[in-house]
Amino acid sequence: MGLPKTARIHEVGPRDGLQNEKNQIATSDKVALVNALSGAGLKSIEFGSFVSPKWVPQMADSDEVGQQIKRLPGVSYQGLIMNERGYERAIAAGVDSVNVVTAVSETLNRKNMNAGVDESLENYRPVIARALRDGVQVTAYVSTAFGCPFEGEVPPENVLRVSQKFLEMGAQEIIISDTIGCANPQQVREIAELHLEHIPLEKLGMHFHDTRGLALACAVVALQIGINRFDASIAGMGGCPFAPGAQGNATTEDLVFMLEEMGINTGIDVLALIEVARTAEKLVGRPLPGHIKNAKLKPSYLERR
Amino acid sequence: MGLPKTARIHEVGPRDGLQNEKNQIATSDKVALVNALSGAGLKSIEFGSFVSPKWVPQMADSDEVGQQIKRLPGVSYQGLIMNERGYERAIAAGVDSVNVVTAVSETLNRKNMNAGVDESLENYRPVIARALRDGVQVTAYVSTAFGCPFEGEVPPENVLRVSQKFLEMGAQEIIISDTIGCANPQQVREIAELHLEHIPLEKLGMHFHDTRGLALACAVVALQIGINRFDASIAGMGGCPFAPGAQGNATTEDLVFMLEEMGINTGIDVLALIEVARTAEKLVGRPLPGHIKNAKLKPSYLERR
Repeated sequence: MGLPKTARIHEVGPRDGLQNEKNQIATSDKVALVNALSGAGLKSIEFGSFVSPKWVPQMADSDEVGQQIKRLPGVSYQGLIMNERGYERAIAAGVDSVNVVTAVSETLNRKNMNAGVDESLENYRPVIARALRDGVQVTAYVSTAFGCPFEGEVPPENVLRVSQKFLEMGAQEIIISDTIGCANPQQVREIAELHLEHIPLEKLGMHFHDTRGLALACAVVALQIGINRFDASIAGMGGCPFAPGAQGNATTEDLVFMLEEMGINTGIDVLALIEVARTAEKLVGRPLPGHIKNAKLKPSYLERR
Repeated sequence: MGLPKTARIHEVGPRDGLQNEKNQIATSDKVALVNALSGAGLKSIEFGSFVSPKWVPQMADSDEVGQQIKRLPGVSYQGLIMNERGYERAIAAGVDSVNVVTAVSETLNRKNMNAGVDESLENYRPVIARALRDGVQVTAYVSTAFGCPFEGEVPPENVLRVSQKFLEMGAQEIIISDTIGCANPQQVREIAELHLEHIPLEKLGMHFHDTRGLALACAVVALQIGINRFDASIAGMGGCPFAPGAQGNATTEDLVFMLEEMGINTGIDVLALIEVARTAEKLVGRPLPGHIKNAKLKPSYLERR
């Protein structure tokens, strides 16, 4: 298949995973979760969101989380920001990278950001410039890239236009994001190949949700064309807490298991991840969708214990 | 990707899905489930198993199910058999096809069939010959093709040997089966490509379990090399009833959704399938693992209502 030899996993569970939880999770539990994830070998972790607590109350303590986590060398600790105020909070919380986001669809962007797509991009320009001056990495999320709940299909060239605009403003990484989990493998191929005509492979990553069960199928196709940087959430956190079975992000431990089984090195300990996934389940107090935490271990893993 | 234009789905929910349910499901409910599946457009349905009721008590009424289901033209109604006695029951129950199974691994075969691999194959020889004389189709399942719970890794050439032996005895279809859900996409490619060197594409199908979340990722790779005949179970039935979250077969409605989204025609109505999946969930009395029954419908589907 000409698969990549290695893959990089960016863990979004403590942010994208937890942000919709209605019960407030204790700061100390969030800190312990981040520490367990880095302990399992994850080298990139999004620990919080620096937006108004009025919008996302669960992330109100991201400043404290950032201050209290144990920093492991070689691990990039990251936070989501929407504006300059968020940037300042993120820096104070000790982020190594700030993550910015714009939807490709006009409607969703106006609802989420109170600004059109181009206006939202331009609002980021001074923040990105400042981050670059400060030596802070900028990762840009291009959301609703595979479909919008309001507009439906999104033209691939519109996705590319937003990606290119972010790059032009200085973002080092572009994450093509299936915000509502509606991508299919064929669509992933089309949008990824269009991007690769204009953007170097090493700047691209993928963010899938498993809403319709296709996250790993989409990841396989991305891998086949060389993309090897994926977002994932421990235990598949990120689904709606009130819809039983509704899935969240691609599941970290299932994705890492698949990659390692395919001979793609992640540097992550699958057995340790399974333990973290079980901890995450206790934290939210209900079954979470990841698979391998409920399956028997393959003999090859048992031998490593 | 050079994908197939169409795909055939063989529904195994009423057999592989239900067989581990501890609570006896009423015969009338099984009949209604099969009728709902054919009503949604499934053209191949395994409605029962003709083995000793001592081994699989849930399937003790397969004879009655076969007699009571409403036969739709163009639909193949199938049953699993292990021997001549089972063949006779299956024929009396009105099957269009009998499905036979042998594991590739010696240990599992001895435990399940009380016979070694070659002995088990030879035991089928007179039954297959009889079916061919009777004009009944024979589909052969090559199980533990991607790994055995007792022996671990299974050499691909051993899988091919069993497949070829079944073909030589007269089986019309070979289903390469991931009995314990441990296949990874790279392994699917290797084993399928080895088979394609010796066996025509149209005789091959795949049977995946979603135990570790990789069933659809494996299906995508099989599709890429042309294989377009897949087993699946409505709502993902077939997991262990006592392990919450433990997954069963590849989920029919998720697989059909993925195929249709990729532009591969299945002839199956996704919206009708979602309703059947919800019925299946009520039947077993607990949440089943399929995804799209819990997700919002994409606008393109809503428009079809």
